[in-house]
Amino acid sequence: MKYTKHVFVCTNDKEAPKKCCGSERGMELVNAFKEGLKAKGLDIEIRAQRAGCLDTCGKGPSVVVYPEGVFYGFVTPEDVNEIIEKHLIGNEPVERLVIA
Amino acid sequence: MKYTKHVFVCTNDKEAPKKCCGSERGMELVNAFKEGLKAKGLDIEIRAQRAGCLDTCGKGPSVVVYPEGVFYGFVTPEDVNEIIEKHLIGNEPVERLVIA
Repeated sequence: MKYTKHVFVCTNDKEAPKKCCGSERGMELVNAFKEGLKAKGLDIEIRAQRAGCLDTCGKGPSVVVYPEGVFYGFVTPEDVNEIIEKHLIGNEPVERLVIA
Repeated sequence: MKYTKHVFVCTNDKEAPKKCCGSERGMELVNAFKEGLKAKGLDIEIRAQRAGCLDTCGKGPSVVVYPEGVFYGFVTPEDVNEIIEKHLIGNEPVERLVIA
């Protein structure tokens, strides 16, 4: 496997009034993941990046971590370090944010 | 796992002369996957969607299939049905297109 963990963050914009992750809110998360991983020297083996709609629109901003396929919802930039530490490094999902 | 297979297609545009998947070529693939899966009634359990740069730029257009983490390169719309039939349904990667 090219990456030990691969994190996809929805940065899709849908038309109002549909609830959505949105490019602005999503990119904040992408950047927080990228910076957090780089600061720990993990940005080669773990990749975080933007993606289109993950089809979890009502629970956005949403994120999926593979290979486990754990989906997180209502993720804020403040949650990113916990996901990195606990899940991406420690292999234990952050249960309070899991949606699927 | 929300999806039995989750296919991410790079639709990123990088500035020339860097080789890249590109939004136009990538979206052709996304649409081919979506149409192929829908025609087979598989579009609920298997999701194909666009993503940003997968960091396999020299081998684009590129695609990754999770949960296996199989990366495909130089993918054309003509390859999509084979990937659907052999890999997404049959669980056997299309070796001639595998890059990682």
